[in-house]
Amino acid sequence: MSKKRLSIVDIAEKLNISKTSVSFIMNGRAQEKRISPELVERVMKLVKEVGYKPNSLAKSLRTGKSNIIGLIVEDISDPFFGAIARLIEDKAYKNGYKIIYCSTYNETQRTKEMINMFRDRHVDGYIIVPPEGIEEDIKSLQDDNMPVIMFDRYLPLVDTDYVIVNNQFSAYNATQHLIGQGYKNIALISFFTNQTQMLDRIKGYKMALKENNLKPCIKELPYTQNTKSLVEPITSFLKSKKNIDAILFGTNRDATCGLKVINNLGIRIPDDLAVVTFDDSDAYELHTPQITTIAQPVEEIAESVISTLLAKLKNGGENIKNQSIILHTELIIRGSSVAKSVKA
Amino acid sequence: MSKKRLSIVDIAEKLNISKTSVSFIMNGRAQEKRISPELVERVMKLVKEVGYKPNSLAKSLRTGKSNIIGLIVEDISDPFFGAIARLIEDKAYKNGYKIIYCSTYNETQRTKEMINMFRDRHVDGYIIVPPEGIEEDIKSLQDDNMPVIMFDRYLPLVDTDYVIVNNQFSAYNATQHLIGQGYKNIALISFFTNQTQMLDRIKGYKMALKENNLKPCIKELPYTQNTKSLVEPITSFLKSKKNIDAILFGTNRDATCGLKVINNLGIRIPDDLAVVTFDDSDAYELHTPQITTIAQPVEEIAESVISTLLAKLKNGGENIKNQSIILHTELIIRGSSVAKSVKA
Repeated sequence: MSKKRLSIVDIAEKLNISKTSVSFIMNGRAQEKRISPELVERVMKLVKEVGYKPNSLAKSLRTGKSNIIGLIVEDISDPFFGAIARLIEDKAYKNGYKIIYCSTYNETQRTKEMINMFRDRHVDGYIIVPPEGIEEDIKSLQDDNMPVIMFDRYLPLVDTDYVIVNNQFSAYNATQHLIGQGYKNIALISFFTNQTQMLDRIKGYKMALKENNLKPCIKELPYTQNTKSLVEPITSFLKSKKNIDAILFGTNRDATCGLKVINNLGIRIPDDLAVVTFDDSDAYELHTPQITTIAQPVEEIAESVISTLLAKLKNGGENIKNQSIILHTELIIRGSSVAKSVKA
Repeated sequence: MSKKRLSIVDIAEKLNISKTSVSFIMNGRAQEKRISPELVERVMKLVKEVGYKPNSLAKSLRTGKSNIIGLIVEDISDPFFGAIARLIEDKAYKNGYKIIYCSTYNETQRTKEMINMFRDRHVDGYIIVPPEGIEEDIKSLQDDNMPVIMFDRYLPLVDTDYVIVNNQFSAYNATQHLIGQGYKNIALISFFTNQTQMLDRIKGYKMALKENNLKPCIKELPYTQNTKSLVEPITSFLKSKKNIDAILFGTNRDATCGLKVINNLGIRIPDDLAVVTFDDSDAYELHTPQITTIAQPVEEIAESVISTLLAKLKNGGENIKNQSIILHTELIIRGSSVAKSVKA
């Protein structure tokens, strides 16, 4: 049942017209080239009959351009990555590029396979939220003159464009805010990794505490797709550390699960426990009290990523030096971290 | 600087061994084929030096299989689609398939371009959340024996596999629940479209009201990526319809925005206004009071979609008849829709 694909040449022969005319018609340039509407109709009728599809992959092999960008994020169901993916896709589309995306779940092997898949699909450039251990794969893309830009984090030993936020200052600033509101036993609950963004957040948290002669208290969580598995460790941490009066959550995933645990245990925010988290979301704005967040500038991140990559994709763009763009977060102070009540 | 790709033949010639041996080694079958570790090492060393990448696109042209599935959703930043995309990706990966995805934002033209892009990238099958107006594109894929499965909604005039939920009963049942709790002026606030899932939800809502001799009150919202633009119409609707005592939201996007408006106006849930929405999410579980939701079975939707498609992709699968799978939602009753207080 499957049909053999007809080429432009076949169509031209069948209608006894020039290949160039068929090509102009197929590319929507008939009017510009003063090709008669009658001929256009004949060609389109045949095209419909024979099921001809312009083969843009063949075109991309000829021109070396597919106008497709591969976007590899950690987890597309995470509201932070979902929001950025949507913005990047939209900005790319307005510039004539399409985005195809996939998730890594921080798995090195899976990421390597995704990179190879995109390479085989002839994408023009790569936007990657890197897990650890893919340095060689990135270098190999660069050896083939493939533009690569990272965001959210970067690989310290590979020279690429990247867009991140000022994670260390953001965590430092949020912790200072809690200290300024009278909180003294401030825990950090976060998934742990050697990824740059997390190392910087931990560093900022520790620095603020040290400056104020306070002790850090860190609860490490595993990276997991199954957030239900975080309920038990967070619950037992909160039950065993009764003196904790504030929590900084390292990611929105940790915070969303943590808030469910806090509500289930009947712990009152902020009277019993103040809460601040990275990454703003609808859930934190709708929560009572509203949750103080370190909001990443998702619009600016998407804009910086796509404009930096598009500059590289333009003719001569390969001569542009790599850039590190560090955008600044905003601490949105809400009810969950107001001044500690005097009784404490 | 860009390197010419070496083929398996080039590598075999350079090492003076057979092409078949190189191929077995590249495909991880050296041990099975009793190829000496010493030879494996020589091949892998050269492969690394010359930067050979197995060209799986060439392979897919030869075998007719790419083991890639194209997933086209409405909006990847919507928690419902994000969750399903993640589950589908995971299940596909465990079955040896990769997923590449993109969003349509309900735009017909963009969807056509996405379908063509995936076609040119030689995907083996398509999972599509269809906007209106792509009937011809789907038929064209089917003419080429491409398996297509839809979910969330379907195109009534095209025969494909699809997985949906019982939208009409779900809306009917949720409205009956509100009526049973004593609410009488129940509004439906939703984005409007001719898509099957929305038509069924409206029908179910109207049927429940008719059965109880109550009048429908529908506020139509436009489909938009910019949810901020929904604030004004929802606000003026709530201000002008003071007698409304309950709202059924047609989608989670409408509800999330609606809840912000309700909270901003100081309207108390459920004392002033009961709330029920389609699609469960963290935001509704964390809200005070928790929001009653019509929870779609995301795990089962993903499982049904991927298993139906994989069956079609197997040898002989093209002889399997199309199926319509209708899964059932769960009405999760929470504090936002408890019995109307007696004062009313």
